[in-house]
Amino acid sequence: MDFIRRTFEVRKLILKNHIDAALISSPHNKFYLGDLFSSSGYIFITKESQYIIVDSRYFEEVKCKNKLFKAVLLSSENTIDKILNNIIKTEGLCQIGFEGNEISYDFYSYLHDSLTCGLCSIDLSKIRMIKDTREIETIKKACNIADMAFNHIASYIEAGMSERKVENELVRFIKEQGAQKESFDSIVASGVRGSLPHGKASDKIIKKGEFITLDFGAKYNNYCSDITRTIALGNCAEELLHIYSMVKAAGEEAIRNAKPNLTLGELDQCARNLITEAGYGQYFEHNLGHGLGIQVHEYPDVKSNSIDLLKEGMVITIEPGIYLPNVGGVRIEEDILITADGCEKLTNSSRELIVI
Amino acid sequence: MDFIRRTFEVRKLILKNHIDAALISSPHNKFYLGDLFSSSGYIFITKESQYIIVDSRYFEEVKCKNKLFKAVLLSSENTIDKILNNIIKTEGLCQIGFEGNEISYDFYSYLHDSLTCGLCSIDLSKIRMIKDTREIETIKKACNIADMAFNHIASYIEAGMSERKVENELVRFIKEQGAQKESFDSIVASGVRGSLPHGKASDKIIKKGEFITLDFGAKYNNYCSDITRTIALGNCAEELLHIYSMVKAAGEEAIRNAKPNLTLGELDQCARNLITEAGYGQYFEHNLGHGLGIQVHEYPDVKSNSIDLLKEGMVITIEPGIYLPNVGGVRIEEDILITADGCEKLTNSSRELIVI
Repeated sequence: MDFIRRTFEVRKLILKNHIDAALISSPHNKFYLGDLFSSSGYIFITKESQYIIVDSRYFEEVKCKNKLFKAVLLSSENTIDKILNNIIKTEGLCQIGFEGNEISYDFYSYLHDSLTCGLCSIDLSKIRMIKDTREIETIKKACNIADMAFNHIASYIEAGMSERKVENELVRFIKEQGAQKESFDSIVASGVRGSLPHGKASDKIIKKGEFITLDFGAKYNNYCSDITRTIALGNCAEELLHIYSMVKAAGEEAIRNAKPNLTLGELDQCARNLITEAGYGQYFEHNLGHGLGIQVHEYPDVKSNSIDLLKEGMVITIEPGIYLPNVGGVRIEEDILITADGCEKLTNSSRELIVI
Repeated sequence: MDFIRRTFEVRKLILKNHIDAALISSPHNKFYLGDLFSSSGYIFITKESQYIIVDSRYFEEVKCKNKLFKAVLLSSENTIDKILNNIIKTEGLCQIGFEGNEISYDFYSYLHDSLTCGLCSIDLSKIRMIKDTREIETIKKACNIADMAFNHIASYIEAGMSERKVENELVRFIKEQGAQKESFDSIVASGVRGSLPHGKASDKIIKKGEFITLDFGAKYNNYCSDITRTIALGNCAEELLHIYSMVKAAGEEAIRNAKPNLTLGELDQCARNLITEAGYGQYFEHNLGHGLGIQVHEYPDVKSNSIDLLKEGMVITIEPGIYLPNVGGVRIEEDILITADGCEKLTNSSRELIVI
C-alpha cells in the first residue's frame, strides 16, 4: 500500500497547522497510515521521521511488515510519554498535533501533564477522502458481498419471520462470503417500524402487506459497504408504492448529477428537491449520504449546507428516504465512486420494487 | 429498574467531587441510569433534578418510559450547550463533572468554550460494579446462551474447517438463541495461533493434533457474558495436555478463594502462583480477569497489583491462560458472581478437556 504518499498527506497537515509532529491513535487512521488495526499502539509522524509504537504483541510483526516506520516497543516501563519525550528531545519538537475528535479528554490530560512540548487538536478526517486503486477494489468486493446478500435475503424472507431472524441470516450469509463481519448492526424495519430511519432489527414479526427496509453492509479487509433496499411483502398500500417511486427517482437524480466540482450541498439538493416538490420534504429528515471506506461513516457528509466539493476518487453513499410516522418508510441506498466526469455505481442490486 | 438508587449513586459522586452536577454521555451509563441506549443524547443529574436530553427520534419514547427524568428536546436550535446553560442559570450551578474517559477532547473543548460554569473530569466506572437482582438474572441468561453455544460448537468443529467458519457458526447460533449479538469479536485460535491471547478467527484451517481456543460471549438485553474453553482435536502433544491441567487448576484455585473483602490482587495471585510455581509464570502475561456487565470489560480489573476489594454483587471473569510461543496456548474462562460468603459460577460448561 502507498504508505509513503499517505504519510506525506499527514506531513502536509503538519505544515499547514504550523506544528512539528502528529500523534495518531485511532484504529482507522493507524490502519490507513501503517497497516496497524488495533485499539492500542500509536503512529507518530514528525517532519523527519515516522514511528510505529506498539507493545510486545505486535512488535515483531510490525517490524517485519513495514520498513517505512521505526518500530518502538511500548511497555509498562517504556510508556508512551517517555517514548514521545525522547523523540521530542532528539528532534527538538515544540508542538504536537493529536486527533482531538478521537482521543478522550483523560488521555489528552495525561499527555498534557507529561509531555515536554505543546499540544493541539488537529483534524485528520480528510486524509482518507480520496481512495486509491487498491482501496476501490476492496470496497467493490465489500459492495459485491452486500449485493449477493440482498439477493439471498430477498428470497429468504417470508411472512411470519421476525426481523431478528432476517438479520441473523443476513449476518451469517455475509460472513460466509468471506466478509470479516457486518459493517454495522443491520437495520431490518418492517411495517410502521419502517418510519424509524434507524430501526435495528427487533422481535417484530414481518407480515403480509408490509414494506421492509433492509440497511446493512459487509466489512471486507477492513473496508465497508453500505446498502439499503426496501421490499414489499405482497400487496401494499398505494401511498407506500408512491413514496417508493419518489425515493427511487430522487436517488437516480443525484447519481445522474454526481461529478467532480459539484458541491456536496448541491448533490444533496438534487435528491431533496424532487422529494420536497412531491410534498414529502418534511419526511426526509437526514442527510443524503456520507463518505464510506475504512469507517462506515467518514468524511464527507453529503448534506444540504455543505460547500465542500466532490472530487474524483471519493466514495459516498446516496440514500434518500421518506418516513411517514405510523405508516411506514422507504430508503434506497447506493455506494458510488466519483470518477473523472461522473460516477460509478458500486452497488448493483435492482432498484425496482421487489414484491415477495 | 432501580433508577432512583442508581441516580443516587451519581449524586454521592457529585458530593464527593464537590461539584454540582454530572453530564453523562456514554451509551452504557445512559442505559444504566435512564434506559437510554444510544450514542446520541445525554443524561444530566444535578443535586436537585435529573434530565434526559434527546433528539426527536427518542423524545416521545423517553417521555413515556421514564417519569423520573425531565425530558428535554435536543435539536439544531436547542443545542446541548444552550440546554445546559439554561439549567446552569436556573439551578445556579458552578461546576459540572463529565465522563473524562469517555468524551473526546474536541467535545470537551466545545463544552469548555460554550458553558457558563466550570468543568471537571469525574470517574463513573464504579457506579455499575454491584449488580442488582435483575442485572444478575440477565447476565445469567447471557451466560446460559454462551454455555449452549459452546456445547453446540464442540459438536460442530471438524478438522479441515477454517477458524472463520467456526466463528460464523458461533455467532449464528448465539443470535438464534435470542442474544442481540456476540459480546465482542469472537476469538478462535487453533494450533500455534493459540499462543496469541487475542487471536481473532482467521482463514487458518483447523487440523488434527491441535488445541483450539474459543473465547466468545453473548449480549442479551444489553448485558454480556464472556467464556473461554480450549478443546483438543484428536491426540495432542504432552506439553499442551500439561498446561491444560495447570490452567484448569489455577482457575479453580481462584474460584475456590473468591469472596468479599479479598483484594483483587490476592485473587489474581491465587491463580498466578500456581502457574508460576509450575514454571510457566512468564507465559501468563495478562490479568486474571475483569468486571462484566453492560460492557464486556468494566470495573474492576482483576490484576495482581490491585488493592481494591471484592464485594458481594460483583460479576467478574476468571481467565488464566498459558501461551507458549510457536507451540500453542490454553485459556479457560468462567464468569462468577461474588456472593455473601464466596462466589457462584455463572458459566457452567465442562472444564474437563474435551477431545473431539
